[in-house]
Amino acid sequence: MVTIRLTLEDDGTGFAGWARQPGQRTVEGVLRDALGRTFGRVEELAVAGRTDAGVHATGQVVSLRVEGGPPPERAALALNALLPDDVAVLASAVAPDGFHARFSARARAYRYRVLTRPTPSALDRRRALWHPRPVDDADLAACAALLPGEHDFCAFTPTETQHEVFVRVVEAAAWTRTGDRLELTIAADGFLRHMVRTLVGTMLQGDAARLARLLEGAPRGAAGPTAPPWGLYLEHVRYDGEEPPAPPASIG
Amino acid sequence: MVTIRLTLEDDGTGFAGWARQPGQRTVEGVLRDALGRTFGRVEELAVAGRTDAGVHATGQVVSLRVEGGPPPERAALALNALLPDDVAVLASAVAPDGFHARFSARARAYRYRVLTRPTPSALDRRRALWHPRPVDDADLAACAALLPGEHDFCAFTPTETQHEVFVRVVEAAAWTRTGDRLELTIAADGFLRHMVRTLVGTMLQGDAARLARLLEGAPRGAAGPTAPPWGLYLEHVRYDGEEPPAPPASIG
Repeated sequence: MVTIRLTLEDDGTGFAGWARQPGQRTVEGVLRDALGRTFGRVEELAVAGRTDAGVHATGQVVSLRVEGGPPPERAALALNALLPDDVAVLASAVAPDGFHARFSARARAYRYRVLTRPTPSALDRRRALWHPRPVDDADLAACAALLPGEHDFCAFTPTETQHEVFVRVVEAAAWTRTGDRLELTIAADGFLRHMVRTLVGTMLQGDAARLARLLEGAPRGAAGPTAPPWGLYLEHVRYDGEEPPAPPASIG
Repeated sequence: MVTIRLTLEDDGTGFAGWARQPGQRTVEGVLRDALGRTFGRVEELAVAGRTDAGVHATGQVVSLRVEGGPPPERAALALNALLPDDVAVLASAVAPDGFHARFSARARAYRYRVLTRPTPSALDRRRALWHPRPVDDADLAACAALLPGEHDFCAFTPTETQHEVFVRVVEAAAWTRTGDRLELTIAADGFLRHMVRTLVGTMLQGDAARLARLLEGAPRGAAGPTAPPWGLYLEHVRYDGEEPPAPPASIG
């Protein structure tokens, strides 16, 4: 058997998230269907980031071991011919034995898109949060500047949780603006469930001093609302020996 | 009665185009429903560009005369509360008596989006044409440079046609590239049915000398295929006294 690494894009709108669940359409479910029809044997499927329902991915990474099928570098073409059009394999390649999409990952990068204009967008209604209230770019920039480093993100994940450790190390975080569009990019060694969305919901309320207090391990009730899933994109996963992407120029 | 002007965005995916048709979901149909629930009387509804099924708009313009309803500048808010989320009113305002979205228009600008990478996009599957074959940027730029001026676009519209005049004046046309994304922007006094899509289908075949011959009024059979509707956006309509938008920097 050979270990392969797939890079995936998916439109989260039509999926009940990544993880296979009975009776639900999930990204894992449709991918396993296509894999089963492409390879003779599929084992040890692992994913870098288990996205929630409605969350998109442009750089999801999956590892698996396969036998009997096309050469790994042609698997993308074979799988795309079988997958529904809201999932696409962007790349497929042989990976070193022992490569595991989740446990070998050193960092993950997410993007959150916000539309700040007074009227909603028909085309981006499932692609960005519509936030028609005033936002203070300088305050958002001050919030993002607080995030790099090691923090206890307990306030930014649901209180009913399977996480045991709430400390994560943020590598980089920045808001950028293009016209009436704001985007947060954030990279960390790992993320708690709903962490980016709750950070966004809190930052859009605009109070850097409060965010600073929350980053010391305040309880969930002290943070802001969870921003909706459709503004969130899993954009990149980094593994040993790979370079982090250049950070964008921040606003503010 | 007062004349008002609406600017609309719509995601063409779920519509059988602009024009009302029995038993079909159309942009005009859902807009008329919302207008009927907002105003006491609605007359003389006119649209700048009758988009085909699947074509999007980010700057469609509609004119109408109304009586009994919210003040025109608040109509956008009232209509958005009633419209489905794949249509949005971006602006509403009083217009001079006699303003007609179609007949008063001096120019229309369209954008066509093309994704040139080897693998398809899940998120942009209904937002851009996926064109995995090689394209020559210099050739595309040469094609676009042929378009400005007055030409007979007979080759770029179906042979069964309601058009009587096939001459149009193109103000500006340019291809731009961002990574693996190409975009054509084109502005003209008016467009024939399928004209932008057939120009794109022909230009992607890459032969500027052939395009030059076609622009002299060659028959439809001599041009390339009609590119699919989902890459096309009606972006802007210009009226008397309004400035044309600055042209983008071309590739090539």
